[in-house]
Amino acid sequence: MVLELRPPEGTTLDALRELGPVFISYVLSFVFVGIYWNNHHHLFQAVRAVDGRVLWANLFLLFCLSLLPFASAWMGEHEFAAVPVALYGVILLAAAVAYFGLVRTLLPIQPEGTRLAEAIGNDAKGKISPLIYALAIPIALVAPAIAFAMYVAVAVIWVVPDTRIERTLSR
Amino acid sequence: MVLELRPPEGTTLDALRELGPVFISYVLSFVFVGIYWNNHHHLFQAVRAVDGRVLWANLFLLFCLSLLPFASAWMGEHEFAAVPVALYGVILLAAAVAYFGLVRTLLPIQPEGTRLAEAIGNDAKGKISPLIYALAIPIALVAPAIAFAMYVAVAVIWVVPDTRIERTLSR
Amino acid sequence: MVLELRPPEGTTLDALRELGPVFISYVLSFVFVGIYWNNHHHLFQAVRAVDGRVLWANLFLLFCLSLLPFASAWMGEHEFAAVPVALYGVILLAAAVAYFGLVRTLLPIQPEGTRLAEAIGNDAKGKISPLIYALAIPIALVAPAIAFAMYVAVAVIWVVPDTRIERTLSR
Amino acid sequence: MVLELRPPEGTTLDALRELGPVFISYVLSFVFVGIYWNNHHHLFQAVRAVDGRVLWANLFLLFCLSLLPFASAWMGEHEFAAVPVALYGVILLAAAVAYFGLVRTLLPIQPEGTRLAEAIGNDAKGKISPLIYALAIPIALVAPAIAFAMYVAVAVIWVVPDTRIERTLSR
Repeated sequence: MVLELRPPEGTTLDALRELGPVFISYVLSFVFVGIYWNNHHHLFQAVRAVDGRVLWANLFLLFCLSLLPFASAWMGEHEFAAVPVALYGVILLAAAVAYFGLVRTLLPIQPEGTRLAEAIGNDAKGKISPLIYALAIPIALVAPAIAFAMYVAVAVIWVVPDTRIERTLSR
Repeated sequence: MVLELRPPEGTTLDALRELGPVFISYVLSFVFVGIYWNNHHHLFQAVRAVDGRVLWANLFLLFCLSLLPFASAWMGEHEFAAVPVALYGVILLAAAVAYFGLVRTLLPIQPEGTRLAEAIGNDAKGKISPLIYALAIPIALVAPAIAFAMYVAVAVIWVVPDTRIERTLSR
Repeated sequence: MVLELRPPEGTTLDALRELGPVFISYVLSFVFVGIYWNNHHHLFQAVRAVDGRVLWANLFLLFCLSLLPFASAWMGEHEFAAVPVALYGVILLAAAVAYFGLVRTLLPIQPEGTRLAEAIGNDAKGKISPLIYALAIPIALVAPAIAFAMYVAVAVIWVVPDTRIERTLSR
Repeated sequence: MVLELRPPEGTTLDALRELGPVFISYVLSFVFVGIYWNNHHHLFQAVRAVDGRVLWANLFLLFCLSLLPFASAWMGEHEFAAVPVALYGVILLAAAVAYFGLVRTLLPIQPEGTRLAEAIGNDAKGKISPLIYALAIPIALVAPAIAFAMYVAVAVIWVVPDTRIERTLSR
């Protein structure tokens, strides 16, 4: 997955300023990919067994995330227009569902004594995030700025230190 | 290998809908790359020895797969025209042959007791897929929709749970 | 992160020569990414524990470095104009601060006896580099050539063999 | 490093045929990258110690190889014109010298009993290849087809099974 940022035509500060929406979109997408990367890393540290369905659940998550740069570029280049902002939410929702599915595929096949369930906890964030996305998608069509603020809010609750992964992990 | 999806010019739902063929092509190619990735992962879990010819067989498979985004983009951008759909089949056929060659290169050099032959099984899917591709290529030139349906059919028989990899693998 | 170099339109030596500024920019950016890669590799060889904040500090460094190809292309395509050269310095400064932050996040959580502090040493280069960048940024706006020379100077002091990593590491 | 192949405008076999030179260039570059990948893999299997200079020698090789897609695209898009073919040779020569330097940097720092020197052997191919490139570069300026044939010849002598890596390696 490659987020892209093309240099502006001119060389003035104004030319740079015009990149504003694209850059904001880039930052938010980088943060979301980072959240998934960190959580994925954390998840698989506690995983002891995988099967064919896990590989496919993992690929489906990767597929959803591979669409994020596309939606991110569309949203940024058109200054957070309604449909692109809604599509961005659809892809975030799909990725959240894919991650949830991956976790549910992993849980039943772990050998006894694996700390996966413990590592996941009650997963309040994982349950609230898709609800916020589902609310934001129709809102985006009438008030994209509010939908965008909702995406940012989800990112913030994930970035803020999480006691689950705050524990030091030995390598 | 990078599958690409460029954002549309406008910001309407119609602008998004025009991306339909490109997106369908993207999804199918993602699934095929995912099938190879999963099978390759599964294959090398049972491999205990490699030699120079294995490295080249592996690179040849990678070469074929590296052409898939090219054929995928051509097929999608031209709404499944005859020659692009045929070329897509040629590349799928080449990748299937490359994978078959990789397996045949690996088998004789494994130390005794390796479970590679067992892991591969009778490989019915691996034998049927190239036949379907070989049939689909000439069909594509007269009825690309039928050829495309045949590619989808191959993808489906691979994605459907496979008893070979359904067994839980310990890590 | 992908540095890009597009082939010129013509096929003459002059056409190639016109790529000069883009190529110089490409080389410098490759060297900076190489410096971070080498230092990062060296750093994590001595690391024994990571936590959630380390993952985020690491992602922030990756974010800064992901902006380097963008600034590099802008700087090269516009023959080292003032604002692009200043922006390049801003990104180098951000990356240096991110790396410093990563190290400070790692230090307190290492188990006793870890040789991380020892591996870092007094880190004179790590302290001088951001100062040079901070000086170069305003200079770039009036004399970009001098600012560029300052970036090159920083790269040189990092590439020159460092007694810290000169010791042979066993694998 | 990313080799790129853009789909043609039309959907006829002729449109595909016009991609011929770009495709030939793509294949040759893929083979060269494959040769370096395989040799690098083989080399580092016998390596037991690295130091700061090895990391830089390795990055210099990566730098040279990162320029190959650029030269490859230039050569293919302009149907093997003189200067692009010569530049392609310059980059192959640089990569060969970089690889040679990497090996010489690795040899003296290996602990006693390492089989690196044995794994490298007398390295006849490694010595002949840069000579052929050095000859091909001036030839490219007057007869690019002959220079191109010389590059192909080098690729062939590397791809042909090598007794050095023909031995089965245990994993």
